[in-house]
Amino acid sequence: MNEGTRRVRAADLEAFVTAIFAAAGTSAEDAATIAEVLVWANLRGIDSHGVLRVPGYVGRIGSGEFNPRPDFAVLAELPAAIVIDADRAFGPVGMSRGMDTAVAKAREAGIGVCVVRRVTHMAAIGWFALRAARQDMIGLVFGSSKPNMAYDGARARGVATSPIAIAVPGMDREPILLDMATSTGSMGRIMLARDRGTALEPGVALTEDGEPTTDASAARFLTPLGGAKGAGLSLMFECLTGVLVGNPLIAAALGPEGDWRHSQNGFALAIDIAAFTEPARYRRDIDALVDALKALPPARGNDEVRVPGERGGRVMAERMETGVPLPAGTWSRLAEVAAGLGVAMPAVIAAEAHSSSSRSLL
Amino acid sequence: MNEGTRRVRAADLEAFVTAIFAAAGTSAEDAATIAEVLVWANLRGIDSHGVLRVPGYVGRIGSGEFNPRPDFAVLAELPAAIVIDADRAFGPVGMSRGMDTAVAKAREAGIGVCVVRRVTHMAAIGWFALRAARQDMIGLVFGSSKPNMAYDGARARGVATSPIAIAVPGMDREPILLDMATSTGSMGRIMLARDRGTALEPGVALTEDGEPTTDASAARFLTPLGGAKGAGLSLMFECLTGVLVGNPLIAAALGPEGDWRHSQNGFALAIDIAAFTEPARYRRDIDALVDALKALPPARGNDEVRVPGERGGRVMAERMETGVPLPAGTWSRLAEVAAGLGVAMPAVIAAEAHSSSSRSLL
Repeated sequence: MNEGTRRVRAADLEAFVTAIFAAAGTSAEDAATIAEVLVWANLRGIDSHGVLRVPGYVGRIGSGEFNPRPDFAVLAELPAAIVIDADRAFGPVGMSRGMDTAVAKAREAGIGVCVVRRVTHMAAIGWFALRAARQDMIGLVFGSSKPNMAYDGARARGVATSPIAIAVPGMDREPILLDMATSTGSMGRIMLARDRGTALEPGVALTEDGEPTTDASAARFLTPLGGAKGAGLSLMFECLTGVLVGNPLIAAALGPEGDWRHSQNGFALAIDIAAFTEPARYRRDIDALVDALKALPPARGNDEVRVPGERGGRVMAERMETGVPLPAGTWSRLAEVAAGLGVAMPAVIAAEAHSSSSRSLL
Repeated sequence: MNEGTRRVRAADLEAFVTAIFAAAGTSAEDAATIAEVLVWANLRGIDSHGVLRVPGYVGRIGSGEFNPRPDFAVLAELPAAIVIDADRAFGPVGMSRGMDTAVAKAREAGIGVCVVRRVTHMAAIGWFALRAARQDMIGLVFGSSKPNMAYDGARARGVATSPIAIAVPGMDREPILLDMATSTGSMGRIMLARDRGTALEPGVALTEDGEPTTDASAARFLTPLGGAKGAGLSLMFECLTGVLVGNPLIAAALGPEGDWRHSQNGFALAIDIAAFTEPARYRRDIDALVDALKALPPARGNDEVRVPGERGGRVMAERMETGVPLPAGTWSRLAEVAAGLGVAMPAVIAAEAHSSSSRSLL
């Protein structure tokens, strides 16, 4: 069983992760939020942003990078805009507060934005966008972090693989949820190729010297989606977050300061559908849009046309039944952290000889 | 001289285009706005969105698609959000009003959005984003239109090549201006390859049957940038505009209605920098960010690292001196329209044997 994958019920895994963070120093409420966001990523099949992050998060409390007891501060406020300093809060804690604040603003003003300053790793940002979509809002989230992607035309790290997520509610259908990085590939894909000893797709990764490579062990940073377009979007996300709230990350890293310490800034925008149209009509029209796209002829080799978030929704339905698969490596690293904090491991409901979650790491 | 390129002073060209649209039925003010936006595109080197559109625009007044005397109507309004029905106004007219309204909202509420319903072709949308950046705002614009791009996973048109533009002001440097389509290539590049008889890059275009092609004469629609990512962004732009204001374009085209008539919807967002930070600090930090990126080592074969909008700014400086190049085909089509409306052609300041603007069509 040491070499295989264990399956754990989502509720048990969430309770376990909550206990870990509470033991590591966060409030019970914050621990529950962090656990919910991480386990949600696993349920959706985004294992690279799920509970495998727990040991790293706990370690970053110790190093002082993540603050388990942040003092949030409102730095600026107008009817539709607010800046919150997150005091190095955990990303899920800071960005949940950010989206909730944006939603409250949008109820009054039609739209609302919260820019969250000095937050840390946000995990799967689609969760925050969905939080708005569940309240008859459109949610839009992006962030900025330290450079880990080539800037187009340069052979060095210049921007981050900063993601964007947008969620809109449907009526009978699930919300459409786009959650994408501005890079061609992902660090998770590189890590997976390293573990497997396989080659990378061409064009995805660069060596430390900025040379293209398909050798996962030599890959150090990523290429931007579509060259100038992905790099440009990522650059604008920094202009719309880090620079806007006085925590610039790219210039601080690349400039004379050479500050590469972990920090992020997030942009949470909520759009109150009722300010623009009748929400039931909107939801029905979203369903009609999805229906129209799904009725298109699939491309060669495709069995069906899918909309953003559809695949994740199916994985979630399946994993709610069969449990969240935890590969041996994740399990043992969680066990180590749990032992150190005196937390019991969650019950295993099934064990498999080989990892079943490799696809989800992509 | 019939086969060559003529150069015309920007001011003369703008006066000429203004006269054309005034003669074709718009107000003098609207004619000036349309002319300014189109000539700006030429000045920036985006000739595909410049005055070569004039004959098509005039023709679409005749067909009833573009309304030269629109009655704008406010359909909904809250402190930070407003919906304006543009009554098939020219895109430059409708979107200028949209951005001005968004900026006014942002002054009071911190951010402001105007969704412009039932507008027509917007020309180069970067102009509207820049309009905000010139007022100490961040401008963000995107739109939706009828499907002309494959939806990822389908072998048919499913979404549009909908662009997004974002502009932020610098201090001593020009604003950063990102203006990108969600497609891999552009219809302009296909038209150029057709004219030249050259092949397309692989992966850019599809035949009517959705098969990849490098034959420009067989190319009918475009591929999305990065597959699911570009298609997903474009889809979300429809959810954030057309569906939000009751003028859905994709479902109307693909569904039983089969409505492929020209229509667009636009999203204009203004963010008042002063609501978040001190504007002078923001502008300095943008300059520092640009400096940091431009100091990166260029990729092999690149002489320098450029930021979005930099190339267009240089072309503009050059063309303000040397005039706007108009290829023979554009000149003759403009002459035909001008003759029909009794408008004199602008003065030619130089003529060249061969087109010098082909690069700019890309």
